[in-house]
This record gives sequence, structure tokens and C-alpha cells, in this order.
Amino acid sequence: MISLYNEDIVLLSRCGSAKNVKIDKSNNLLNMAITDVVIIGSGNVAETLAAAISRSDDYRIVQIISRNSERGKYIAETVGASYAGFEEGLSPADIYIVSVSDNAIAEVSGMYDFGESLVVHNAGSVSIDELSFRIKNRGVLYPFQTFTAGIAVDFTDVPLFIEGSTKEADGELRRLASELSGNVIETTSQQRLAIHMSGVFACNFTNDMYAAAQRILSEYGLEPDILKPLIAETARKANNSEYAADVQTGPAVRGDRETIEKHLKLLENNTRLKQIYELISTDIWETSKKISQE
Amino acid sequence: MISLYNEDIVLLSRCGSAKNVKIDKSNNLLNMAITDVVIIGSGNVAETLAAAISRSDDYRIVQIISRNSERGKYIAETVGASYAGFEEGLSPADIYIVSVSDNAIAEVSGMYDFGESLVVHNAGSVSIDELSFRIKNRGVLYPFQTFTAGIAVDFTDVPLFIEGSTKEADGELRRLASELSGNVIETTSQQRLAIHMSGVFACNFTNDMYAAAQRILSEYGLEPDILKPLIAETARKANNSEYAADVQTGPAVRGDRETIEKHLKLLENNTRLKQIYELISTDIWETSKKISQE
Repeated sequence: MISLYNEDIVLLSRCGSAKNVKIDKSNNLLNMAITDVVIIGSGNVAETLAAAISRSDDYRIVQIISRNSERGKYIAETVGASYAGFEEGLSPADIYIVSVSDNAIAEVSGMYDFGESLVVHNAGSVSIDELSFRIKNRGVLYPFQTFTAGIAVDFTDVPLFIEGSTKEADGELRRLASELSGNVIETTSQQRLAIHMSGVFACNFTNDMYAAAQRILSEYGLEPDILKPLIAETARKANNSEYAADVQTGPAVRGDRETIEKHLKLLENNTRLKQIYELISTDIWETSKKISQE
Repeated sequence: MISLYNEDIVLLSRCGSAKNVKIDKSNNLLNMAITDVVIIGSGNVAETLAAAISRSDDYRIVQIISRNSERGKYIAETVGASYAGFEEGLSPADIYIVSVSDNAIAEVSGMYDFGESLVVHNAGSVSIDELSFRIKNRGVLYPFQTFTAGIAVDFTDVPLFIEGSTKEADGELRRLASELSGNVIETTSQQRLAIHMSGVFACNFTNDMYAAAQRILSEYGLEPDILKPLIAETARKANNSEYAADVQTGPAVRGDRETIEKHLKLLENNTRLKQIYELISTDIWETSKKISQE
């Protein structure tokens, strides 16, 4: 790969026939090499990343490596790459993305000789140092979004949190991430763990609140889809305000004990939902007090 | 008001100059009276209902009554109605909407002689029977949505739960509700209480999960708005599936103890969020087991 971090180089065009062509200050035409990427893994993040990267003119997925040959071959085919199993050996590439489950990152990153190439993982809760110490240019590219098999996600506004082990890794990572998203942020591994946990609250726990609401409705013979306008509006309203706490509504923030007691009575026979109800109501009340005291 | 429940009557047109005109089976032109509505109260629900009702050709808000004269006059002005304080007396009307706080419904509904007119409240957790027993045609019109001052809400797909004390109340309520929303559902007071509670989970508790996530981020020097794409996608994904439980993601549903332990360590000094984390993670795990056993 020709290194293109040089600021003297101006991108001529990324559309049509002129793609992958650059000129330098003196108007000399340069051939811009395409950056080759190998993805190791075939989960939902691997699939989404492969699709997003393959849409770029400057990058090319050359190989998908995975244990699951069905998924691996499927992803490889959709992005025009070759497929290989774990034992069959790596294709040469500029970037290797290790998109495997958290506890396999150390082992998989230690299986191969990656030379000077950049090797990145995608995990929110895994330190950059879990990538094998033998790799010189290590990095993390953590897309902060929820991925489900078969549901396409637009990457362009997904925050991408990056961290590199060297200046070269930083530069290569930032170039790749900026190609995928308009929202690239450098963080430490510790910050990334906090970000991941905040996502557990805002996504996983939120989804469980939806699910709990639907279980309650079904007990009373009501359809789950009556929640849809409320779910959409709640998310929209929070996203239209700087802090979600500023738009909190309901009996807990009003201190409306009478309504709370009616609800708790309805939950008499559901110990866990009752505990959740009490705990979150307390959290709403206590944090709203802090806000009004400020 | 001329009663128009007769199915022989066909609505000629509701647009332009022909509005409020009907013809019967023999093509005789009937003058369609406009139904007069008084709203007692000036909260967010009162404001939203007043705006939605005043957009209808068949209904007219004639009066807003409230203690808060500033809010009451403001709403009255926006919908072309008169304003009166609580002691100044009611205008004659076909429908009175008592849109006051839950614990004031009984008292306010007992203050006036409503005659044969329909009197409805809007509260999810309040039984129809808290409207004064002296009122013959009582009803409930509960819009299942979150309302915040200054944030306009489109009523057309908001589920409206209705309940009437008489056949006449039922008919008048269904006509009004159908004019406001395409999603009108009859429920009992007990079902409505369960619906209201399900909304506390899906809206109020969900919003607290967003707020908790933002508090975590701010502790680590990160901006609250990095959550926005995740919040939007989580709501979108749940609303695109029949049951939210079917699209649950994250460490709890995977049984990923290692990640859970990392998060709990990060929450060491935040007892309440740690309890919430543990309790909801258990809920996710236990309910996902039930699903897979089905």
C-alpha cells in the first residue's frame, strides 16, 4: 500500500472512472492503492463492517476467515471476498479486523503472524492490550450500535471509538473509521468500557423495559403493539433534548405515591418486576431532586 | 346537538364549503350541528387534546376552565375558545373533558351540574367511577402517549382507550375518539391501569435508562449525544418486531459473566445503578430462558 497520509496529496475524485486516483501538489497523477482488509469472524458486527467497508472505493475486503463456514462463505460472497477456515492461512492485507467473541480475541490474535499490518478488534469491553503483544500495530474500532442478524444498519452516523498502539496504527485507524462514519472519537480502553456499559443501560435494559411492558399487557389480554407510538415518542423526545433527565415524565418524577401504590399492587405476584419498579422509581426521584437542587 | 349515530346517514364531505353537511338515504340535506366541548384543566394533555379536537370540523372547543389563568388563557386563545376560572361557571356543551391531576378528578367532577352531557377524564390509573356518581353519562378517554409542555404530538396513531358508563356515553366517546385517532380501543378500568403501568416501564423507566447511561458517560468525560443513534435504533428495532424480547442483545442475554463482572466493577461506587444492573440482567436472562423453552 502506498502511504497517503501526506497532506500535500489532494483527493481528486472518488466517483466514477476517476476513483482511486490522486494528484500531488505539482499535479502529478498518483495511483492510489486500494487498502486490503481481512475480516476474521462472521458475527453480526463482522457482517455489518464487511458491508460498510466494501462500499468504500478505497478499501477492499479480500478475505473472510471464520469457523462457521456457512456464515463466513455467505458474508464473503456478498462482499466479493474469498473465504477460509481458521487453519487455512491468511491472505496478505493491510488491515486485519478480529471480529470474534470477546474471550476469543487474545487467542485468535496470537494465532497468526500479522507483520507490520494493523490488527484491530471491535469489542467495547476488551482492552487494546488483549490483542497479542507480538502485534506491533494494534488498534480498536468499536462501533457504538446494536447489531442483529439480518437487520441492516447505516454506519454513517454511528459513533466509532478508536484507539491505536502506535502513531501508524492511529493514523490508519482514523482513515478507515472516517471512511465509515462522520463521528469518529479517540478514547482509552477504560473510557470504552464505560461507553459499552452505558450502552447496556440505553439499549439492552431499555429493550427489557419494552419487553416487561409487553408481558404486562399480555397478562391483561392486550396487544404488544399498542406500545409502539409511546416507544417511538420516548426515544424521539430524549434524542431531541440534551439530557434525557430533562424530559422525564410519570408518577415517580411527580412523587405521585397514590399512582405508584396502585401499580405496585398490580405487581403483587411478580416479585422481580415489583423490585425493578421500586428501584427505578427511586432512581428517577433521587436524580430529579439533584437536578432541581442545581 | 342532532344525534348522528344513525347508520343511514352518510357523511357527504368534510372538506371545503360542504363541511358539516350530511345527507340521509333520501338525499335530504341535514344540517350537522357542531359538537361543543369544554375542557377543564390546562396541563399538557389538556393542551394537546384541545389542539387536536379544534382541528376537527365536527367539534368546537367553546371554553377552557382552569385555575392557572395564564395557561388556561393561552390554550383558549390558540383554539378560539373563551376562558373561565373554576368559580365562573360552565358554558353549555355536549362534552366536558375533565383533564386535571388524578386526585382532583373526583372533586372537580362533583362541582358542577353537567345534566345529560358526557363527562370524561383522561387518566390511565383512575377508575371511571371516580367521576361523580351524580353524572349520568361518564366516560374515560385515555391517550397512551407521553406529553411534554411545548412538544406537539400527532394524535392520529396514538392509541385511545375508551370506557363509557352508558350506551350513549359509549357512542359519543367512540365518535370523538375516532375523530382524533385511527386506533380506538375499548377497555375496562382495570385493563387501563395495567396499560398505564406498562407505559411506566416502556416510557418512564426507559427514559431513566437513557439518563443513567448519560450520567455514566459524563463521569468519564464523554458527551451524552453519543447515545443518540443507539437510542433511535433500539426503539426502531423493537418497533419492527412483534416482541421486544425477540431482539434482546447484550451480555445478559448471552450469559456473558466476564463482561457483566467488568461492568459491575465499574459500578462499585454506585450502589443503586449496580442494583439496577443486576436486577435487570437477571430479568433478561430469566425471561430469555422462558422464551427458548417455549
